[in-house]
Amino acid sequence: MKNTRRLNLLAAALVGALAFITGIAHAADPLPSWNDGPVKQAIIEFVQATTTQGSAKFVPPAERIATFDQDGTLWVEHPMYTQVMYCLEQVPAVVKAKPELKDVEPFKTVLSGNRQAMAKLSLHDLEKILAATLTGMSVDEFNAEVKKWLAAAKDPRWKRPYTELTYLPMQEVLKYLRANGYKTYIVTGGGQDFVRVYSEQVYGIPPEQVVGTAGGTKYGYDKSGKPFLTKEPRLLLNDNNAGKPEGIHLMIGRRPYAAFGNSPGDQQMLEYAQAGEGARLMMLVYHDDREREYAYGPAGGLPDTKVGAFTQGLMNEAKKNGWTIISMKKDWKRIFAFEQ
Amino acid sequence: MKNTRRLNLLAAALVGALAFITGIAHAADPLPSWNDGPVKQAIIEFVQATTTQGSAKFVPPAERIATFDQDGTLWVEHPMYTQVMYCLEQVPAVVKAKPELKDVEPFKTVLSGNRQAMAKLSLHDLEKILAATLTGMSVDEFNAEVKKWLAAAKDPRWKRPYTELTYLPMQEVLKYLRANGYKTYIVTGGGQDFVRVYSEQVYGIPPEQVVGTAGGTKYGYDKSGKPFLTKEPRLLLNDNNAGKPEGIHLMIGRRPYAAFGNSPGDQQMLEYAQAGEGARLMMLVYHDDREREYAYGPAGGLPDTKVGAFTQGLMNEAKKNGWTIISMKKDWKRIFAFEQ
Repeated sequence: MKNTRRLNLLAAALVGALAFITGIAHAADPLPSWNDGPVKQAIIEFVQATTTQGSAKFVPPAERIATFDQDGTLWVEHPMYTQVMYCLEQVPAVVKAKPELKDVEPFKTVLSGNRQAMAKLSLHDLEKILAATLTGMSVDEFNAEVKKWLAAAKDPRWKRPYTELTYLPMQEVLKYLRANGYKTYIVTGGGQDFVRVYSEQVYGIPPEQVVGTAGGTKYGYDKSGKPFLTKEPRLLLNDNNAGKPEGIHLMIGRRPYAAFGNSPGDQQMLEYAQAGEGARLMMLVYHDDREREYAYGPAGGLPDTKVGAFTQGLMNEAKKNGWTIISMKKDWKRIFAFEQ
Repeated sequence: MKNTRRLNLLAAALVGALAFITGIAHAADPLPSWNDGPVKQAIIEFVQATTTQGSAKFVPPAERIATFDQDGTLWVEHPMYTQVMYCLEQVPAVVKAKPELKDVEPFKTVLSGNRQAMAKLSLHDLEKILAATLTGMSVDEFNAEVKKWLAAAKDPRWKRPYTELTYLPMQEVLKYLRANGYKTYIVTGGGQDFVRVYSEQVYGIPPEQVVGTAGGTKYGYDKSGKPFLTKEPRLLLNDNNAGKPEGIHLMIGRRPYAAFGNSPGDQQMLEYAQAGEGARLMMLVYHDDREREYAYGPAGGLPDTKVGAFTQGLMNEAKKNGWTIISMKKDWKRIFAFEQ
């Protein structure tokens, strides 16, 4: 009995010492790739206010949820979403397995390799390509295909794997929030199964913390009686716009305290976070850096962009609601980890 | 630089000391409400094999997932699922809000209070009652109603809140797994939103680790412009039978290493866990204790049971696949925490 108490006291003392040392380590700048200014300050103040015991805005650890859009918020989305690139590049393999598709649109156009013709494909065409390349196989087969593709595919501008094109300042925000007890989630319009393949390795976010557009699966057995899941073209969750708060409720069941996005598809997620009580952090990444990344939406060119660009309407919403705009140009000292 | 290194070394030493002390604390019996025997031993051996560094069956912490059915596995399901009890008791309030339902079946029968007539309601009738009492309101209103009901409602046999009718031996398994780095999930045929209201308080399982039968929600705004979610009668996931592995893939995206159930609705979840590589733990709670709880399925009476009882077919599957049967009578020293 006495021994147990002594051990408990010793353990408590050690935990205290550890917390103190951890505190020292954190006193270093948690966001070194950010320029000093009101945006960086707002992130730090939010974290301090919600994690300091006794603060009026303190949030219990279990409730610390932060949600992040992926394409354009955590990594480059231009000139095309990475997943769409994956789907287009899978078309030859799909046609090889089903030769009857060779002369059928939109597969014919994709096979032609004619970039101009491909840029004119409709949303409906795109849906056909997504269904053909993202469904019909087992979950394990799909995961293996995506892994293989990611290891080889390169972004046309930087000539690097897509998984290196994540924004270093946002990686720092993810780590900073996690170091302060926040559970970080990706809430993406992209495919949930696709993003889950690399989320842990690329963002330190485990598959169970990825919410995305999701289709159904079908449980069955192979010839040896071993069960497996087949990906079906049955949409369960379109994780865009109103689908983001609906997906957050379905998959997390808690309202986020912090939400980061960059396009009109993220508006409802930010509204939903803001509608909660206490301190809330709503931020939008604004692509206004033509040299180091891209400038689009109200910030500039790229009229034929296929991505869900920032609109003037979203800018107006942000102003009305007091959301913070992250200017890539002004607020980010460094954009990619591979840059010196 | 040197100072940082010294602090890091000190921190590492402290972490080591702490791990050692924690080890001592865990050397006590982690499952005191279980009788010694092969079932208790199998649980302990599984945990040791999968969490001991260097073990051939070692599982990295991030992959340690354990899934538990709820009704009949973690708490009493007889004479009726608690959630069905909730729905039946909500009927008067529903009819008060919509008086036109007063003379419409099945609401009329439920209002009559005639237990014999109620026992004869069909599955289709029950679905109408579930839709009327679980959908149409906002998520916040629903959560508040369930909370209020749980605080007042009592089980007819033990005259205690339903939330006290959880099995102490299973609570010990949940805690033991968590203390060893496992993430514990509820995977229930019951309503995901319903179980999430009390899962943290009752089982120490946060809402984001509850997978259940789930309907869609609809995002909208109230008169003041504040967004909210309305529960819709649109089924997204029927989390029973094949729906359990499908739901696990949708909500977790990893295959569980341990799975506990008690009815034919859990068979596919156990198969799915078993189909993975390495050590896997598949267990079924068998209700064979007429005195301390209930005996049903092959173990005995209760022919008019409305719950998804253990069947002879499931028993045969268990034998064929080598799943472990937990006999409540033989394996559990104590069933409820409130018993002395």
